Amino acid sequence: MITIIKDIQPSNKEVGESVRLYIDTLTKPPGSLGRLEEIAIDLAAMTEKRFPVVTPPGVIVFAADHGVVKEGVSAFPQEVTAQMVMNFLGGGAAINVFSRQIGALFEIVDVGVAEDLTADGLIRKKVRYGTANFCEQDAMTKVEAEKALSAGYKEAEKMIKKGIKCLILGEMGIGNTTASSAILTVLNDGEIDGLVGQGTGISNDKLQFKQRVIERAIKARKPNRKDPMDILAKVGGLEIAAMAGAMLASAANRIPILVDGFICSTAALIAKELCNNAADYMFVGHRSQEPGHDTALKLLGKKPILDFGFRLGEGTGATVAFPILQSATLMTKEMATFSSANISNKS
Amino acid sequence: MITIIKDIQPSNKEVGESVRLYIDTLTKPPGSLGRLEEIAIDLAAMTEKRFPVVTPPGVIVFAADHGVVKEGVSAFPQEVTAQMVMNFLGGGAAINVFSRQIGALFEIVDVGVAEDLTADGLIRKKVRYGTANFCEQDAMTKVEAEKALSAGYKEAEKMIKKGIKCLILGEMGIGNTTASSAILTVLNDGEIDGLVGQGTGISNDKLQFKQRVIERAIKARKPNRKDPMDILAKVGGLEIAAMAGAMLASAANRIPILVDGFICSTAALIAKELCNNAADYMFVGHRSQEPGHDTALKLLGKKPILDFGFRLGEGTGATVAFPILQSATLMTKEMATFSSANISNKS
Repeated sequence: MITIIKDIQPSNKEVGESVRLYIDTLTKPPGSLGRLEEIAIDLAAMTEKRFPVVTPPGVIVFAADHGVVKEGVSAFPQEVTAQMVMNFLGGGAAINVFSRQIGALFEIVDVGVAEDLTADGLIRKKVRYGTANFCEQDAMTKVEAEKALSAGYKEAEKMIKKGIKCLILGEMGIGNTTASSAILTVLNDGEIDGLVGQGTGISNDKLQFKQRVIERAIKARKPNRKDPMDILAKVGGLEIAAMAGAMLASAANRIPILVDGFICSTAALIAKELCNNAADYMFVGHRSQEPGHDTALKLLGKKPILDFGFRLGEGTGATVAFPILQSATLMTKEMATFSSANISNKS
Repeated sequence: MITIIKDIQPSNKEVGESVRLYIDTLTKPPGSLGRLEEIAIDLAAMTEKRFPVVTPPGVIVFAADHGVVKEGVSAFPQEVTAQMVMNFLGGGAAINVFSRQIGALFEIVDVGVAEDLTADGLIRKKVRYGTANFCEQDAMTKVEAEKALSAGYKEAEKMIKKGIKCLILGEMGIGNTTASSAILTVLNDGEIDGLVGQGTGISNDKLQFKQRVIERAIKARKPNRKDPMDILAKVGGLEIAAMAGAMLASAANRIPILVDGFICSTAALIAKELCNNAADYMFVGHRSQEPGHDTALKLLGKKPILDFGFRLGEGTGATVAFPILQSATLMTKEMATFSSANISNKS
């Protein structure tokens, strides 16, 4: 797989540029559809198509548990990960609702839930029963991190073969803002201030405690800033590794990626560290309420599409943002030009 | 009609509050869907329904010309208004594309285009052939302003009878950012600084000139801050009056209104001045690139949904934002509750 990753090409800026020129011939003042024009240009560059389509989209939610919850860093108990997986399979979670709205193919993949789950519809790619508590030992071995990354890569490839034209990633894992803040701190050269947030809703007191847990873990584990697989293994999460792998598969196939919030953006950073070109294929759906997301966005070089104060994960912010990508493609494809509509241009 | 306007009721905050409590039982951390939860609560209060629907939406674009273009305040010539009306009828404008995307009923209404237009599909409610140049005389008579307002009211009522569940307003009228900045300056107690923008794309030099034209007009016309119909007649526009009327009809029928950008927000302010309760039924779809929009939003007491640097009008920003309202209704209607999904709540 490492060979494939190295083969990811940059997006095609020439195709993007030709679409930029074409958009200026459409019946509207130049630049007047702002961000939507930029999105249309980026989509063209990613897909190498002047008139790309993004439908149907695919949503993959990766679920896994985190040993660090034993430290008491989360507002919800660990069993909620498995319970929410059942909720996803039953169709009652927020991500199910929004996936149906956008007509997405939907998949939920167990890459590391702490319990045995055998329900119909669940894709079982469990690498291990949750990570170890990274305050005490590495979250997982490097081989396990690679297995989780590879599982994500393969699931995305399968969905791409089914015909999806845009990949949305989501996650479920009680404790995973803690792992994400740890990864982000390493990638932020050890600067933790402002990178730890309330996750699913811990108190301010617990927030300080959560930060100390992460500081302690990084000190003990010493992840290598230059080695993304080492970071994943030492303080990461199985669903984070899987999302990063799925993004690499999407980039390798020139399929646009719609990144969700804080945790998903951390996975996107891992993917970018593994292959810088992968970031060319990413949009970030929304700005999370997690305070560390701004730093993640800065490192990723991306501006989020929506800013709604979401802090749910699951891929919800990305999925709610999806119709915007569709609007961008329809603008380019369906609008008349000044000459075709016989309209006077600027005086 | 004035009686009907006075009958507009405030939105039902009790229904909104009951939905707020219900949303906290859904399978997600409380408040974790941020703005979407607020939108769901507002929609419930507007419609007096715990599980409202917003589909199908309706889009009405009102078109009219502006005598003030004779002063040279616009980047495009006046004939573009009529040409764009033909483009709307042909389906090639941005608003057509986005209306189709959201499955909206679509109507284009001539309330004051300077030319005779007789094309199939056009709704002809012309009050006069464009406004007068308000640097020289009142834009229109008060009777004409009332006629335009009433035309908008009636078109919205017709569409509501056809079954739309959310009303999106748009406009086309070369010169209408000038009229909007003039109206807004009056409602901003004469403070013009920061309220004049580049419209469809004039140069910085012309921007200064545009501001002086507006200052001159307000000085000469002396619109009465306390009388919205006087403001409309003296420095307004026919399509702005019609949009305000359509919003009042929507509010009277408890149909949520999705306001577009700068010009549409100015019409919303006129509607609010005519009946303060009308604002209870409004969402603002996006933050326009026109610098005056922030002041309009402040006076309206609204926070825009999207921030994409649009400056096109036609209802485009509101239409692109529409799927977000739909996401909010689906969240409330389709998500499982903690108890129905057997999920452990916060520890």
